[in-house]
Amino acid sequence: MSNQADRIIIFDTTLRDGEQCPGATLNIDEKLIIAKQLARLGVDIIEAGFAVASPGDFEAVHKIAQTVGTENGPVICSLARARHDDIKAAAEAIKPAAKGRIHTFIATSDIHLQYKLKKTKPEVISITEEMVAYAKSFTDDVEFSPEDAGRSDPEFLYQVLERAITAGATTVNIPDTVGYTTPSEFGAIIKGITENVPNIDKAIISVHGHNDLGLAVANFLEAVKIGARQLECTINGIGERAGNAALEELVMALHVRRQYFNPFFGRPADSQESLTNIDTKQIYKTSRLVSNLTGMLVQPNKAIVGANAFAHESGIHQDGVLKNKLTYEIMDAQLIGLTDNQIVLGKHSGRNAFRTRLRELSFELSDKDLNKAFIRFKEVADKKKEISDWDLEAIVNDEIQQAPDLFRVELVQVSCGSNTQPTATVTLRTPNGEELTDAAIGTGPIDAVYKAINRVVNVPNELIEFSVQSVTGGIDALGEVTIRLSYESCVFSGHAANTDIIVASAQAYVNALNRLYAALQQQVKEEVTA
Amino acid sequence: MSNQADRIIIFDTTLRDGEQCPGATLNIDEKLIIAKQLARLGVDIIEAGFAVASPGDFEAVHKIAQTVGTENGPVICSLARARHDDIKAAAEAIKPAAKGRIHTFIATSDIHLQYKLKKTKPEVISITEEMVAYAKSFTDDVEFSPEDAGRSDPEFLYQVLERAITAGATTVNIPDTVGYTTPSEFGAIIKGITENVPNIDKAIISVHGHNDLGLAVANFLEAVKIGARQLECTINGIGERAGNAALEELVMALHVRRQYFNPFFGRPADSQESLTNIDTKQIYKTSRLVSNLTGMLVQPNKAIVGANAFAHESGIHQDGVLKNKLTYEIMDAQLIGLTDNQIVLGKHSGRNAFRTRLRELSFELSDKDLNKAFIRFKEVADKKKEISDWDLEAIVNDEIQQAPDLFRVELVQVSCGSNTQPTATVTLRTPNGEELTDAAIGTGPIDAVYKAINRVVNVPNELIEFSVQSVTGGIDALGEVTIRLSYESCVFSGHAANTDIIVASAQAYVNALNRLYAALQQQVKEEVTA
Repeated sequence: MSNQADRIIIFDTTLRDGEQCPGATLNIDEKLIIAKQLARLGVDIIEAGFAVASPGDFEAVHKIAQTVGTENGPVICSLARARHDDIKAAAEAIKPAAKGRIHTFIATSDIHLQYKLKKTKPEVISITEEMVAYAKSFTDDVEFSPEDAGRSDPEFLYQVLERAITAGATTVNIPDTVGYTTPSEFGAIIKGITENVPNIDKAIISVHGHNDLGLAVANFLEAVKIGARQLECTINGIGERAGNAALEELVMALHVRRQYFNPFFGRPADSQESLTNIDTKQIYKTSRLVSNLTGMLVQPNKAIVGANAFAHESGIHQDGVLKNKLTYEIMDAQLIGLTDNQIVLGKHSGRNAFRTRLRELSFELSDKDLNKAFIRFKEVADKKKEISDWDLEAIVNDEIQQAPDLFRVELVQVSCGSNTQPTATVTLRTPNGEELTDAAIGTGPIDAVYKAINRVVNVPNELIEFSVQSVTGGIDALGEVTIRLSYESCVFSGHAANTDIIVASAQAYVNALNRLYAALQQQVKEEVTA
Repeated sequence: MSNQADRIIIFDTTLRDGEQCPGATLNIDEKLIIAKQLARLGVDIIEAGFAVASPGDFEAVHKIAQTVGTENGPVICSLARARHDDIKAAAEAIKPAAKGRIHTFIATSDIHLQYKLKKTKPEVISITEEMVAYAKSFTDDVEFSPEDAGRSDPEFLYQVLERAITAGATTVNIPDTVGYTTPSEFGAIIKGITENVPNIDKAIISVHGHNDLGLAVANFLEAVKIGARQLECTINGIGERAGNAALEELVMALHVRRQYFNPFFGRPADSQESLTNIDTKQIYKTSRLVSNLTGMLVQPNKAIVGANAFAHESGIHQDGVLKNKLTYEIMDAQLIGLTDNQIVLGKHSGRNAFRTRLRELSFELSDKDLNKAFIRFKEVADKKKEISDWDLEAIVNDEIQQAPDLFRVELVQVSCGSNTQPTATVTLRTPNGEELTDAAIGTGPIDAVYKAINRVVNVPNELIEFSVQSVTGGIDALGEVTIRLSYESCVFSGHAANTDIIVASAQAYVNALNRLYAALQQQVKEEVTA
């Protein structure tokens, strides 16, 4: 990667900043599935986590570095505060990757210096120099971020950046941490940096932003015009508060409007060469995968990947679309891989057809996972005549993202209705192999099921979110249930798909409880060894 | 309203462009509820519909004009193509309003002229002049939009606008119909207009945009800097495809960044006077109401109104927030009316307490509706110990937005589970007062209920969306079910809330079927009289 990049470098932080949003917690297997899909999507860099934050974070970065960080794969990056411990953990976590990056940061705005860091400006400069150099001792690829750059004193910001580049930073990232700036202001910050940091030509300028005022994507595109060449973004724009800049919006804006952006890259306006390395046909699939695994729903009117993004309602527009596609559509749905949802398999489809279609959908399963998924497929096909690509994706994502298999649902039985007291009976197999059965009444069938499960599992928790979506149209659709529960201040999520919403709800709840239970066991273990 | 507006005029088109998105169809009562809330929110203009489109659209605009279009209320507007029939229908529909506006439009881009209108440029100019003058014969307040202005030949656009203003247009609206432009480009279009339309000082410049590339809000804010003074927007940014510019993002950006925007309005930067008439404390409530009634979910990472918009997850940020709120938050949740969800009522609360709290929440119900809602409240309070404000809102919205009461659910009874064949029994009261009972098996309990209902109602239809969300936290939460079904090319939605998800699903389905059934009866009536 040259320092004077002639195209946009996509830095995906779905697994780091994206996962930081309330409730989007992912386990290691889920992170790995997403990382593999990000590699297929063609992102340049995967920020896989914040290695020092927890043993789980470390392991996730390490495993992704091992598995996805191949020679031809993306750069694998870990975040690290500007501290020795953080940087050391990051360095160890990314070690197995063919290309590894350490991304270290320190706040530079007055308000952060005063209230959070309690440090002076000279102190921040010397920490920056020392820590960038320390990171450089582990890898050539070092990124430095002055946190809250958008509210920092410009002269100080220039100084910090200059010293960071001198100390070895190859990318300097300008975050608009609070989503506060407008495009012109953000452009002016980038312009100031290009004009006032003497060695800025020795580093890639990156941008990072939050969407609190709905301006993240616009801010980034303005920065691109001024010379920013790396965009830090997430799938579906997930992230803290209102989220990060959405990868799919950035990539498609650069694609659809390449005639407008080409000259800023020194290319002729009509150049057809892509401005990113992204395989846009993988966008829709990646969006669905991230939404399913994080449980962060995508609203129908979300740009690019929302269910309505390519749909038309009004008579006038339909008429226009029929007369000439370009009157109202500026993008072709094919471009993001949103092909028709094909019906491909049925009750009588064999294992070979199943495996072949999964390969075509870019799922590469181990024999064990394939077997598990095939059994589920047969169960679903028994109930639902026609199995579409989207059903297949739901089945596979559901099967391979299992939570630790501690409690297992053996039986759910419910009776409910308008004049009945909702009553549930559940049988769970406990981690010791015991089968425990209990029953409970509830305000509704799912409440009854959850109360019956609680009687068996007996781990106090609070349900903070419950949602169901049907994966496919039709009245016999697979229902996907996502739940989040909280225990002390931690959030655990569970996800399951079934044609029976009650069974899916039970399974999702037990998945979440298994995660909670595993965390409690881990805690006990740590307390014993401490 | 002076032509040289010194503040931003908020033109809400939730009920027109917003309702045009697939599946967001609203009935007249729902539109009226939303219009009343928009008036409380303080929007300047409500575009209530497209009067000529259907008798239902006409009636909705007419009723909103009657009820909400009071002397101190908002301007009520109807859309109209540049045709005599359209404009006449619009004029009649808005007549009861104290302040009424006709918004007429014609396409001006080459691609639309060629493929859709099949008209020459001189023809378009003379139609514009004639139709604006015709609209002016009904009301002084006439808005004109050159459709697809963003892709129109600038010289032609200037000419059309000049003629429209001469003919009497007091507002000229510049739409970016396909969501194609970037902020700088959109700003340049507005600048061109301010510099090249000689009589532009006699009209307010308005902007309208779609969010296909995620840039609508940024485009509008850029236009504001150049001189645009009316913003056409929708609650939650709903609308065709990726939707319109979101009202809440625009209003809060102008509020939070008023120091930045003030100078563009000739005010000192530190002026604390608001740039809009919006009561920001009504934003969150309006967002929830529109989401509930349209069934268009708001994703958790939606700016301003998403569930996570004011939540923090990461340890670092939480620490920062505790140390000083301003380190990470640029807005106070209070500002949009997102107060804590208070537990206010319980099983023993009487009618007075119920009525008082509803008034405090700005619900003004007729005695009949209050009685209905109170009965529902008592039913819910029997099952759920503590009733919060959000529960109350769900109950009230559910009760007062009933679909035509044709079929009524008398009984639902379900048995299901992992080893059971899901079986449902339903009893419906038909429009003739007959009670019909039938049973069915299904792939899950809801499928079984729907199949049993289908046996009774016998109107073929296709379920295209089914979603459930819990209104409030806690395992005994009210579940809100939204369903959409299609019949031929029409979409009908149903919505219901209940602690029993199966009962809510049955009710929501019957609500949607009642709408479908009413439409079919209407059709038969029209065929008979034709």
